[in-house]
Amino acid sequence: MTLQKKIIELLGVKPAIIPEIEIKNCVDFLKKYLVNHVHIKSLIVGVSGGQDSTLTAKLCQMTAETLRKEKNDITYQFIALRLPYGIQYDEKDCQDAIRFIQPDQIFNVNIKKAVLSSEKSLKKSGVIISDYVRGNEKARERMKVQYSIAAMKQGLVVGTGHAAENITGFFTKYGDSGTDINPIAKLNKRQIRLLLKNLNCPKHLYLKKPMADLEDEHPQQDDESVLGVTYDAIDSYLEQKKIDIRSQKIIEALYLNTLHKRNLPITQ
Amino acid sequence: MTLQKKIIELLGVKPAIIPEIEIKNCVDFLKKYLVNHVHIKSLIVGVSGGQDSTLTAKLCQMTAETLRKEKNDITYQFIALRLPYGIQYDEKDCQDAIRFIQPDQIFNVNIKKAVLSSEKSLKKSGVIISDYVRGNEKARERMKVQYSIAAMKQGLVVGTGHAAENITGFFTKYGDSGTDINPIAKLNKRQIRLLLKNLNCPKHLYLKKPMADLEDEHPQQDDESVLGVTYDAIDSYLEQKKIDIRSQKIIEALYLNTLHKRNLPITQ
Repeated sequence: MTLQKKIIELLGVKPAIIPEIEIKNCVDFLKKYLVNHVHIKSLIVGVSGGQDSTLTAKLCQMTAETLRKEKNDITYQFIALRLPYGIQYDEKDCQDAIRFIQPDQIFNVNIKKAVLSSEKSLKKSGVIISDYVRGNEKARERMKVQYSIAAMKQGLVVGTGHAAENITGFFTKYGDSGTDINPIAKLNKRQIRLLLKNLNCPKHLYLKKPMADLEDEHPQQDDESVLGVTYDAIDSYLEQKKIDIRSQKIIEALYLNTLHKRNLPITQ
Repeated sequence: MTLQKKIIELLGVKPAIIPEIEIKNCVDFLKKYLVNHVHIKSLIVGVSGGQDSTLTAKLCQMTAETLRKEKNDITYQFIALRLPYGIQYDEKDCQDAIRFIQPDQIFNVNIKKAVLSSEKSLKKSGVIISDYVRGNEKARERMKVQYSIAAMKQGLVVGTGHAAENITGFFTKYGDSGTDINPIAKLNKRQIRLLLKNLNCPKHLYLKKPMADLEDEHPQQDDESVLGVTYDAIDSYLEQKKIDIRSQKIIEALYLNTLHKRNLPITQ
């Protein structure tokens, strides 16, 4: 079995999908978990304005609405979290995403002061962190905020991670990968856009250039220039298509170098 | 197969151990990982003065010393982190543990300001966190600090998690369970004490009452009163011994209610 086949099997990506079916599968998946865990009443997503969180948040809002009807229980809620670091460059996209999602509740927690306070304590101990490391501090602080709000709202932290990110390990360990449940884990970017389009998401949101936007020194830097490979190539690779050898080598090297990020801590 | 057998198999606990052998296994396990990942040069442990971190830190210090000799490479280092929240009640035990461990380096990062800053941002957004949730914020802030220092020191975050904690889920998700590698994962508390004793650890440290000490409103609260079951019963259960039915029921309920804490995020 080729490495490509092994990866696809592990990440569970389908070569082709029907958006309506995938949307239903995601909502049913979230619904089933909530029904089987009665103490959980809310779903929580950090909304950044990007494709992944816009889709995940919309699916969660649909789940909450469906459960309220089916269970005649108004306590089921979707909570969108805005977690900017100071002022967000693309705040307008964020507001457009919120308007598309129509969340039951929104909390806006600015993480800048907490991250700078943490950085200050590190500096006091003799450790000066780099811009890159500050970026990971931001992602982990966002995880902290999501879990604290989830704890206060009988909530579940819903991840926005997907196969095209998972394969390259393009996330912060225990940051954006620190979640309870990931409904879109088996989709690639192409498929995420298909679902958003099917849900009548505004075009400028589902065609928005993917960017983690964690580094102060490289604001609005798009993922593809960081990775050195396009999502188009990653998506085709995940759909078992043949891609150019340069892209394949980059993708497989990134995959093999980030195994620890997709697994539990190593034990004997 | 009984639930007890299934749990023991999953957590990998031996009914009996020989301390010298386990010590060697742990050091060899850490050594092998470092040798196979040449970019990693330091091991990082948060030292609290408790049994688990004292043993893990000592094993890491031994690993660094061995690698320096065997590889003739002085860059291998063990870094102990002191991560108090304000003033630590049992600071003396901490200093005694540091003296026993003799770490290559120590960094002292007080996490109180960062945690309170995060709490303030949450409050500003309309979310008041409980004392219990603040406790989890502390554990997650400690994880953040360990990863930021690891990133700046080509380091690996070494976990102090073990089977007697794992079975009850008595840790903070993405807090103290947010680590890269867990050398003592398959030991129970009895076995941890045996190894510390074998390493000539001061008695008051290896007999110290286990306490997470995360809650301001219950300072120095010992784990066993929180769990409602003794570590002695947990250890016997993990060593396939028969224990009183009340303790068995508590242990198995805790295990079944915390499955999500010992697994990756749920996907379809």
